Amino acid sequence: MENILRLNLSAKKWVKEKLPEKYKLLGGRGLSSRVIADEVPPTCDPLGKHNKLVITCGLLAGTSASSTNRVSVGAKSPLTGGIKESNGGGVTAYNMARLGYRALILEGRAFPGKPQIIVVDKDDVVFEDAGDLWGMGTFSAMEKLTRRFGEKASYTLIGPAGEMKMCLAGIAHTDMEGRPSRYSARGGLGAVMGGMGVKAIVIKGAPEPSLFYGKDEELWNDAFNRLGKSIQTQYVTGEMMPNYGTALTMEQMQGAGGLVVHNFRQGQLDDIDAFGGRKMREVILERGGEGSTSHACMPDCLIRCSNIFADKHGKEINSPMEYETLGFLGTNLLLLNLDDVNQLNHLCNEIGIDTMETGAVLAVAAEEGLIQFGNFQDMEKLLREIATSSPMGRLMGLGAASFAKAYGCARYAACKGQTIGAYDPRTIKVNGVTYLTSPMGGDHTAGNGMFLPIDHPNPEGKVEESVRCQTTPAWIDSLGLCLFIRAAHLADPSAICDAMKARYGGEWTQEDLNEIGRETLRAEISFNRKAGIPDVSFFPDFMLEEPLPPLNAVWEINEEELKNIWAPLFAADKNSDKG
Amino acid sequence: MENILRLNLSAKKWVKEKLPEKYKLLGGRGLSSRVIADEVPPTCDPLGKHNKLVITCGLLAGTSASSTNRVSVGAKSPLTGGIKESNGGGVTAYNMARLGYRALILEGRAFPGKPQIIVVDKDDVVFEDAGDLWGMGTFSAMEKLTRRFGEKASYTLIGPAGEMKMCLAGIAHTDMEGRPSRYSARGGLGAVMGGMGVKAIVIKGAPEPSLFYGKDEELWNDAFNRLGKSIQTQYVTGEMMPNYGTALTMEQMQGAGGLVVHNFRQGQLDDIDAFGGRKMREVILERGGEGSTSHACMPDCLIRCSNIFADKHGKEINSPMEYETLGFLGTNLLLLNLDDVNQLNHLCNEIGIDTMETGAVLAVAAEEGLIQFGNFQDMEKLLREIATSSPMGRLMGLGAASFAKAYGCARYAACKGQTIGAYDPRTIKVNGVTYLTSPMGGDHTAGNGMFLPIDHPNPEGKVEESVRCQTTPAWIDSLGLCLFIRAAHLADPSAICDAMKARYGGEWTQEDLNEIGRETLRAEISFNRKAGIPDVSFFPDFMLEEPLPPLNAVWEINEEELKNIWAPLFAADKNSDKG
Repeated sequence: MENILRLNLSAKKWVKEKLPEKYKLLGGRGLSSRVIADEVPPTCDPLGKHNKLVITCGLLAGTSASSTNRVSVGAKSPLTGGIKESNGGGVTAYNMARLGYRALILEGRAFPGKPQIIVVDKDDVVFEDAGDLWGMGTFSAMEKLTRRFGEKASYTLIGPAGEMKMCLAGIAHTDMEGRPSRYSARGGLGAVMGGMGVKAIVIKGAPEPSLFYGKDEELWNDAFNRLGKSIQTQYVTGEMMPNYGTALTMEQMQGAGGLVVHNFRQGQLDDIDAFGGRKMREVILERGGEGSTSHACMPDCLIRCSNIFADKHGKEINSPMEYETLGFLGTNLLLLNLDDVNQLNHLCNEIGIDTMETGAVLAVAAEEGLIQFGNFQDMEKLLREIATSSPMGRLMGLGAASFAKAYGCARYAACKGQTIGAYDPRTIKVNGVTYLTSPMGGDHTAGNGMFLPIDHPNPEGKVEESVRCQTTPAWIDSLGLCLFIRAAHLADPSAICDAMKARYGGEWTQEDLNEIGRETLRAEISFNRKAGIPDVSFFPDFMLEEPLPPLNAVWEINEEELKNIWAPLFAADKNSDKG
Repeated sequence: MENILRLNLSAKKWVKEKLPEKYKLLGGRGLSSRVIADEVPPTCDPLGKHNKLVITCGLLAGTSASSTNRVSVGAKSPLTGGIKESNGGGVTAYNMARLGYRALILEGRAFPGKPQIIVVDKDDVVFEDAGDLWGMGTFSAMEKLTRRFGEKASYTLIGPAGEMKMCLAGIAHTDMEGRPSRYSARGGLGAVMGGMGVKAIVIKGAPEPSLFYGKDEELWNDAFNRLGKSIQTQYVTGEMMPNYGTALTMEQMQGAGGLVVHNFRQGQLDDIDAFGGRKMREVILERGGEGSTSHACMPDCLIRCSNIFADKHGKEINSPMEYETLGFLGTNLLLLNLDDVNQLNHLCNEIGIDTMETGAVLAVAAEEGLIQFGNFQDMEKLLREIATSSPMGRLMGLGAASFAKAYGCARYAACKGQTIGAYDPRTIKVNGVTYLTSPMGGDHTAGNGMFLPIDHPNPEGKVEESVRCQTTPAWIDSLGLCLFIRAAHLADPSAICDAMKARYGGEWTQEDLNEIGRETLRAEISFNRKAGIPDVSFFPDFMLEEPLPPLNAVWEINEEELKNIWAPLFAADKNSDKG
């Protein structure tokens, strides 16, 4: 983990670089954002030769410690035009770390028409021809890839949408069983990889058993024993997540009145019992077979919030089904059938696209009468267009904001060009502030406060709250941790500080972790400013005017507070915006 | 000219308002931009109910004085997301002024499926059903309209593209013979009109003969006699423009090496004699018939730089053919046949779209292999898609920047989302600065310095030069003058000052005119800032890296100067950005 692997596609050359001193305490999102800020010209074309794709593991990656092996992918985003990081589960980060790499930096472009597979092993990299895989869906490609490179490798790959450089294309990472379904989904990063002519990055599994890296193995083990206990004793991580996964957020948001339903027309479902997280668990258990209500997306995860959804015959349809997908491919489209939504999700995974952005595109299509709300056949047919490079596919591939613009439709919700999360900002105002101000665009993972015990529809204090909510993932994503350890961390904040001490030495406090988050945000916001992206985005008119039933809140906020949201962040470090 | 006509489409109501004191010395672009800044929320949806369409005549409109009757159309632009003004020739402004209106402000939305014609007469307005015209091209619609409302009225109308709310839709104004071919082409203003459900605005001709309005008729006549003499004795307005129109810019740009050829790959044509302004004049004269090398776009114009292009049988194909269209539908597509380019131009006029943005879309389509450079049949077929609402039409309707993004193509040139003018910024650097910094986006009319006797490819001093070039049209467009009077004005600057004195009283100096320009720019830039549009845009990578033959210049500029371009403008008026 003390090395960077720099891969040049134009030259088919690679070089192993010692991690520079300045990056020693950076990982995950912190590192990917910093490399982009350091190496990518902010005004460059996101699909041009100056952009880079940076794949990083977190500061705590590479061991069997629970929840430490998220993989971050960063680049200048073709969707938002700003800096982007999108992290996922799977085995990639673990394998990278085990081979000693904290970052892979992809540069250059494969010779046109000569797409590549990059095969990374302990002290070797091979560029292989990907011609026979180009055009294939991710699952079909995986069959060939596994035959060639085995089951112990991790695979990071794109589908046809990424190859076609579409703004809604994501990057898939394989999970523990080799499914290409753990996604760095957002911001069109798949298009950046496709533009480079890379179909897949294969990272071989390290031969020796998992080892401790760092200064103090005893303290490391102690820290993760304590974190593990917290995980298992906290309600969220010990009970709710392992049983229901993120799908139980449906019930939470039903209670809060912040669901996305019928293209943002309602904040609740008529019958949550027929389509919530409880219902999904019930169906999975009832059907048995290959289905599972609890499944680990990363090596040795204790939370195991992933799941496998099987059909009536017990045959797997899709894994995992997450809340955001239930929202954007389900409730927001009035598609209230779990089999349908799981099939659409699987199809998105195969094409290699973001389920949220795609769902938002379908909602606009329904709004414009191209398809009907709630009609699965309509939706599946339209969705398949994306993989065909037809004009409709290309149009959908631009994402919901541009798709809506093409039809003169005002009913969509995107910030910095990216569709917001499935928490309606009229009710969940703290998330609304995050959507508007995060350097990542409309992104719930960048600062989700929906779980906070606060008066959500009341705009008071939500700007400040969002800043806190945005700082936390910025450090958690830098350590490579899963966001869901938050509750366990709050129960015993010393565990993660001790883990950092065990690994890197020195004393670590919560404030040090927060500073990693702030430093990351500063790098990202500074990049965006230079790229001509304003700090604050805005919502479409309907969010300001159309009350969301049942609470009938509209979007409102103190505009002065919002405008100055990042002033304290930069006042705290006056040197940071000079670069 | 002392009234505003406010038209509400939702209520089908109109009201004649006395021009408020604060607007007394505003007209044209100055007035349209100010009304938008005052009445349109900067972050509203450009196609939503809060946007307004503001049609204004200039401060000197309404008489037979040469070059005084340009019509300005303004709104928040669906293409750039910022403020927009796009002015054209024709009879609209003259008729408006004669009926006593300095501005028409359109608000609200016609009942869905019930498009309207607005018929404006001296003291009456009628809203008529436009159902039978909806879907028709502009020329076909004009046949019906003329039968209904006669030949003395002016017509301001949209084609199918505007009805479909496409970002490349313009607004046509009829010329002296009733051709709907004088365009407020840029920025997607046709989409705003279409979104309101307005097919056409008919402005009845005033019954009495043209009258002088103002304080001092004698001075007025004297001023315009002098301006007329200047027009006729200056080379540009007295000789070049009446004989060749703007088409002779082809030869000028050939000399400067700043043409747009083969999607920005060359700055010169191989054979300018086969496709320049001289050739076009030769062909028009040779063919005779309905063709004409000199034609007035506005009542009593002395410059008469418009033209009529006829086919081999002497039958009119298109009027007018302008330099920008020769560039974007001709040289940039390697379509070097005047008949072909005139046919495409006429087709654009019929569909109601901007020839420049459309040409840029076709160039990307050729870049991506969807059509072939130089192939007229390919292009005509693809262009017709726009009128069909097919997915390809919708995709093209977004304009070149989004169309390029949909195909992952990096070879296009747009600033603030709008295609630049046909002066390659690598050579004509002063225009490059204008494209990057004008509140209007990539727009040559907002600050064209191509005619200046300066070292064009040298970046030195071009930021300052562009500010001057941007200030001039900002006041010229506010007076409703044609930009081409510049040279005549420079020869006798007192004429226009005297005309202002004759009309409005008081003493007028060049500095007063400049201040109108600066005030307009301040209003526009302030609006854009509030709309989240940065002051400075940037060029695509290839402009910075690929030398443009034959001079082999690349885009370069002092970035600090560029970044602070508008600082002096606002320093001069510290109160202006408070609103």
